[in-house]
Amino acid sequence: MIPLQSHPSGRHFLQIPGPSNVPDRILRAIDNVTIDHRGPEFGELGKAVLAGMKKIFKTESHVVIYPASGTGAWEAALVNTLSPGDHVLMAETGHFATLWKRMAERLGLHVQFMEGDWRHGVDPAAVTAVLRADTGHRFKALCVVHNETATGVVTDVHAVRKAIDACGHPALLMVDTISSLGSVDYRHDEWGVDVTVSGSQKGLMLPPGLSFNAISAKALQASETATLRRAYWDWHDMLAINPRGYFPYTPATNLLYGLHEALEMLFEEGLDNVFARHKRLAAATRAAVQAWGLDILCSDPAQYSPVLTAVVMPQGHGADAFRATVLQHFNMSLGQGLSKLSDRVFRIGHLGYFNELSLCGTLAGIEMGLSLAGVPHRQGGVQAAMTMLADTAHSSQEGQSGSDDVKRRA
Amino acid sequence: MIPLQSHPSGRHFLQIPGPSNVPDRILRAIDNVTIDHRGPEFGELGKAVLAGMKKIFKTESHVVIYPASGTGAWEAALVNTLSPGDHVLMAETGHFATLWKRMAERLGLHVQFMEGDWRHGVDPAAVTAVLRADTGHRFKALCVVHNETATGVVTDVHAVRKAIDACGHPALLMVDTISSLGSVDYRHDEWGVDVTVSGSQKGLMLPPGLSFNAISAKALQASETATLRRAYWDWHDMLAINPRGYFPYTPATNLLYGLHEALEMLFEEGLDNVFARHKRLAAATRAAVQAWGLDILCSDPAQYSPVLTAVVMPQGHGADAFRATVLQHFNMSLGQGLSKLSDRVFRIGHLGYFNELSLCGTLAGIEMGLSLAGVPHRQGGVQAAMTMLADTAHSSQEGQSGSDDVKRRA
Amino acid sequence: MIPLQSHPSGRHFLQIPGPSNVPDRILRAIDNVTIDHRGPEFGELGKAVLAGMKKIFKTESHVVIYPASGTGAWEAALVNTLSPGDHVLMAETGHFATLWKRMAERLGLHVQFMEGDWRHGVDPAAVTAVLRADTGHRFKALCVVHNETATGVVTDVHAVRKAIDACGHPALLMVDTISSLGSVDYRHDEWGVDVTVSGSQKGLMLPPGLSFNAISAKALQASETATLRRAYWDWHDMLAINPRGYFPYTPATNLLYGLHEALEMLFEEGLDNVFARHKRLAAATRAAVQAWGLDILCSDPAQYSPVLTAVVMPQGHGADAFRATVLQHFNMSLGQGLSKLSDRVFRIGHLGYFNELSLCGTLAGIEMGLSLAGVPHRQGGVQAAMTMLADTAHSSQEGQSGSDDVKRRA
Amino acid sequence: MIPLQSHPSGRHFLQIPGPSNVPDRILRAIDNVTIDHRGPEFGELGKAVLAGMKKIFKTESHVVIYPASGTGAWEAALVNTLSPGDHVLMAETGHFATLWKRMAERLGLHVQFMEGDWRHGVDPAAVTAVLRADTGHRFKALCVVHNETATGVVTDVHAVRKAIDACGHPALLMVDTISSLGSVDYRHDEWGVDVTVSGSQKGLMLPPGLSFNAISAKALQASETATLRRAYWDWHDMLAINPRGYFPYTPATNLLYGLHEALEMLFEEGLDNVFARHKRLAAATRAAVQAWGLDILCSDPAQYSPVLTAVVMPQGHGADAFRATVLQHFNMSLGQGLSKLSDRVFRIGHLGYFNELSLCGTLAGIEMGLSLAGVPHRQGGVQAAMTMLADTAHSSQEGQSGSDDVKRRA
Repeated sequence: MIPLQSHPSGRHFLQIPGPSNVPDRILRAIDNVTIDHRGPEFGELGKAVLAGMKKIFKTESHVVIYPASGTGAWEAALVNTLSPGDHVLMAETGHFATLWKRMAERLGLHVQFMEGDWRHGVDPAAVTAVLRADTGHRFKALCVVHNETATGVVTDVHAVRKAIDACGHPALLMVDTISSLGSVDYRHDEWGVDVTVSGSQKGLMLPPGLSFNAISAKALQASETATLRRAYWDWHDMLAINPRGYFPYTPATNLLYGLHEALEMLFEEGLDNVFARHKRLAAATRAAVQAWGLDILCSDPAQYSPVLTAVVMPQGHGADAFRATVLQHFNMSLGQGLSKLSDRVFRIGHLGYFNELSLCGTLAGIEMGLSLAGVPHRQGGVQAAMTMLADTAHSSQEGQSGSDDVKRRA
Repeated sequence: MIPLQSHPSGRHFLQIPGPSNVPDRILRAIDNVTIDHRGPEFGELGKAVLAGMKKIFKTESHVVIYPASGTGAWEAALVNTLSPGDHVLMAETGHFATLWKRMAERLGLHVQFMEGDWRHGVDPAAVTAVLRADTGHRFKALCVVHNETATGVVTDVHAVRKAIDACGHPALLMVDTISSLGSVDYRHDEWGVDVTVSGSQKGLMLPPGLSFNAISAKALQASETATLRRAYWDWHDMLAINPRGYFPYTPATNLLYGLHEALEMLFEEGLDNVFARHKRLAAATRAAVQAWGLDILCSDPAQYSPVLTAVVMPQGHGADAFRATVLQHFNMSLGQGLSKLSDRVFRIGHLGYFNELSLCGTLAGIEMGLSLAGVPHRQGGVQAAMTMLADTAHSSQEGQSGSDDVKRRA
Repeated sequence: MIPLQSHPSGRHFLQIPGPSNVPDRILRAIDNVTIDHRGPEFGELGKAVLAGMKKIFKTESHVVIYPASGTGAWEAALVNTLSPGDHVLMAETGHFATLWKRMAERLGLHVQFMEGDWRHGVDPAAVTAVLRADTGHRFKALCVVHNETATGVVTDVHAVRKAIDACGHPALLMVDTISSLGSVDYRHDEWGVDVTVSGSQKGLMLPPGLSFNAISAKALQASETATLRRAYWDWHDMLAINPRGYFPYTPATNLLYGLHEALEMLFEEGLDNVFARHKRLAAATRAAVQAWGLDILCSDPAQYSPVLTAVVMPQGHGADAFRATVLQHFNMSLGQGLSKLSDRVFRIGHLGYFNELSLCGTLAGIEMGLSLAGVPHRQGGVQAAMTMLADTAHSSQEGQSGSDDVKRRA
Repeated sequence: MIPLQSHPSGRHFLQIPGPSNVPDRILRAIDNVTIDHRGPEFGELGKAVLAGMKKIFKTESHVVIYPASGTGAWEAALVNTLSPGDHVLMAETGHFATLWKRMAERLGLHVQFMEGDWRHGVDPAAVTAVLRADTGHRFKALCVVHNETATGVVTDVHAVRKAIDACGHPALLMVDTISSLGSVDYRHDEWGVDVTVSGSQKGLMLPPGLSFNAISAKALQASETATLRRAYWDWHDMLAINPRGYFPYTPATNLLYGLHEALEMLFEEGLDNVFARHKRLAAATRAAVQAWGLDILCSDPAQYSPVLTAVVMPQGHGADAFRATVLQHFNMSLGQGLSKLSDRVFRIGHLGYFNELSLCGTLAGIEMGLSLAGVPHRQGGVQAAMTMLADTAHSSQEGQSGSDDVKRRA
């Protein structure tokens, strides 16, 4: 048997910023017999999930689905659109932006990395400044992370788009929404994004193993002349056969079952309700952190993430020892600080299949853990979150007509 | 599809005092293919679960397993040991004791019902008084409920046994442990119980559908002459074939898979650890209730239930409206008040597969619900529970050497 | 882990006449979290399964669902309608009819058992003869088994009804459909049955653990005056609360999830298609048995069961050794001969979630097992079945317009 | 709900040469809650599956696991070891060898493709001839497919190794075992393979979504200087963190649960027993094909695949119409002919979680389908297979002491 049972009793709280808690409905969907990936039933499945993902990305253009982690979809975005030696502008919002930048370099691209303090999103003004100076249109693409999973900071992608347009610069806009898609409003077409990268294990509530590219017409055109070598990640093989619901190589059938179910769940709740739920739970989380007297890593309240909150440890107290205390005593996993934030922050995931009481349990585990680990803080974080949640309980239900009725699914 | 999805997102908190939250391990075990109930694999399964249940009841005598609800096991206890017109002494500890009494009457028994206020367990002194007066040994049995699910009060069964013995009375002692077995220490043999009745959906963490009798030699002897009509419930058919792991009629195979897994989980954690966990979470629950300034239904702290806490609503406030508020806004089911307690109490289940953070989420839902429903209370219940849980966190782990190691199950 | 893995590889063939092979859809439905059996979602579930079961029984009257095996539903039929000392007419069609007769006697009823040779169904003429002689209307009920699971013989229930009516006898007609419901056409109302008994683990494709009574107005009226003691099985407690979708004691929630799914599957396929499928696969089975030169236990071709075929072993060859050979070498469970047929017949279950290729695999296992066990037979059984299946393949599909399309379930 | 239910009743026979039928044990393992991929439990899981996969590949060197299809593992093998413009020798054994060759070209390699007729494996003598002529050691690698999934032909990899050694040529030997690993004996170390490529959905009995590289010391050394661009597929990132059980990017956690279970199943049965089972079922399949009078695509009996059998359609009869008939009437998926074999062959998968009776059902579906589709053939294929299976039944069990005992898994 799988070694999954190290804790004495009760449900584990998986409060890392992804993978998020996978709902039973999705696990059960995945637990269906594998079918012929070239048979007629599969074609229906393939068409359904491709169509559903377009709605999620809010695009009428193309979406491809890879049997791969999000890292693979990063690579796909780059190798389909760029050529060796191309210049790319990227923005240092945190650990994941940095990883994407390193990947670009390994693939033979020249990256100009706009420095950041890991507490802010991308500054559209800075983008304007760089691109305006790039009169020769050396930069073929600008790559930004929508929701920096390492820091809990959201970049205003629409503003970035406007910044590019303000310069009349032809660079492709590529956006990583791995930890935001399905949790934070995102509009591939309306915001003029050329390639959007995403993954399955965050707002889509799936286990890891699927990743995505949404592709604008302009990006597709760029792929015609791009010469970075590609095979597995090639869009054209995908797009040639996807319309019939099939894939050029064996797809991850059972994860696609899960994706089908996830899409049904998201559309049943309504995307706007999903986004509002994430915002409200995030606000309650921050109310708790502030009540504890701890610092939120994100410096700009306008950029607070609805997906996760990174909390800065008081000087002299390690985040990892604290997280270990919480795991040992309260059966909860919190996100670690990554690279230069290692041991300095912990991250609270409040995304995906999640609700008020699970959040209160999460915050209680943190507040008790702070006590047990001897981390200086004020009591009252859970209380503050509860007050906020109770105060907003009514309005949060208003948008959901019939939410207290029993709705049949089929 | 099953109509199970009436709430917008996140895990439902099933905090009624049973059925309790069924762990995934058990659901997955149930989700195995049904096998030949007369084949060799089934025999192994049957022997394993019967042996395991003996350990749970702490008996070396007999255990039978019915494909039936706990109500069926009540009936089995009575019809196997008694004859029409027999006199039985029962104790009014609450709704379920009253239901069992009505059943006894419907089956043709004469019941003397020792009155109770539904806030106390059985009084051993009262038992002594009645039985001492019964010099003709008219009473063939004394039936008590170990943990009254309607009230959250535990009866000291061992003391009841001593009270019977003090009179030298030969009545059989029958005990309902439907909501205590696997959550509260219970010793069929050591305490001299003749028939113990139990069910699957509480401390055993299973879905409902299985129930049990543990049977002393004296009870088995009584069954030889008892003349209440019986067929489905007959112990002898069971005991004749159980030693080879089979049953006289088709057993509920897949629920037995779940029972097998439940037994493994309980023995892995260790029964004493399980009991200690229930006690600690119950104490934290009461700390919250007391902080809210609400009354606990159970009047005697020595009789507080480790399984559930029934909370008395302030005058003028209905429990059912409050529970509906909690269900609507916070996706949590609380137990209702039953019969004469209807709308006057709500019951918090804190049993089975359950831990600190799930409890904090539960209490948060109640505290927020009290606010939303306009029920007078003081804030600070969750805070009080957290303080208690944090204060006792270290000691609670001490008994579990290696609890922070990853233990392999196989 | 559950001891389920004694065979080296590949799917087990569970070809006993129930429990039948449980489809994955149903196992997955059962593998959902247990909910509050007094909450609003449960009420919807309860109403849905009760309404669905009425369609299965083809009744507009009442259906009750017990958390119990079929044996319990036998008992329920008797104790709700009869009084101690009542006379009942029963018919010896085989082992299960005999068990029901013994149960009736244990419950204090006088049973006249019309003798049978275990190779025929109930003879309506014999019923007429007995009832015509019963001018005093001593018999309160006639109990027959629709599909004798021990023999593979179907009784013409409608003819039995006419036989009763021909005498103008007021006896209740009670019918056991435990192994026929959902596999063989059955019409509670149209055929004038008063109590129909059934179970979950055969044509309903569920694991064992649920059983049923369908109840005519006349039976319900009889229950008003019937004085056999009853509590768990009492119809009135059920019928009082069932209209709101609830049950008088904790129901087997997760098995009810499975029942909900089973009903959807049966209605999706269409009951008439289900019955036709069973008939065709049964005919193919008999073609194989006849090709082997072995005897079918059922003597009257008009009474062949669509559910199972009992095959008589040649003199001097034990059925159990043969079945053990098949289990050991070919990972298939066949049904054993029961009581007086012990070791003399084996039974092939061809019911429930079953199709042509599974049947061919089943028959191949038998034909190879006959060889390995040295049982005299002719080759060619599988071939004969295949010929029949291929010859009827086209017509069997005709009733299912669009059967080659991909149908979406939701 | 997922569109999976287009057939009227009974289990689908998925008899394509992969994905193979996924056992319930594996589906249930996958259906466990996703955990923190950086937590201690995951580390144990990661180490266990990496260690297990080494035993499967029979290597003491390195294994990496990708969240990707087998196509990704092909790419990984090439990009980690080769540089742009490198020359590679490949062998045209069929469709998949051809796809791998095209991939190599797309990645910028020069491929010499030894022609083949798609009915034979790689000829070691031809390898010798080419490599002996390559005195300048222009070829950096030789890539062959162990079991050509498109044709059902096995190449003798050990002989290929000896052919290389006979020339003293330093080329790396890369082998695709996507459809053979876990079904056919394979020895990475003993046979001197440098990179072995494999996937999850064939002999490993998993859904698609995982793929593998086994890596010799020589291949690892080659990767130090290889300059094909790589990021997602880079071995070094993997090998740096794998020893602690972790991965450089989010792994496909739930599929790894399934892999853990698959490894337990394979080791419980014993790899040699697994291989023998495949050989025996394949031989029975060929007995059927020969009895039908149809041609097996593989021309050399020494190269028959234990995994699949490709059957050549008689002139004038299309394989796809035949396969559609089988799917429509008998709920079975057979493998299609690929590229130049399109409509000319159908492929029977007899791999993975599979046994005698499932095979007989499979062959019956084919034999009946041939009749329905009007394809000229002789009857008696199933009969021939049954004769072979019955004749070899005893010996097949001999290796498994205690196979008729009930073995407990834990």
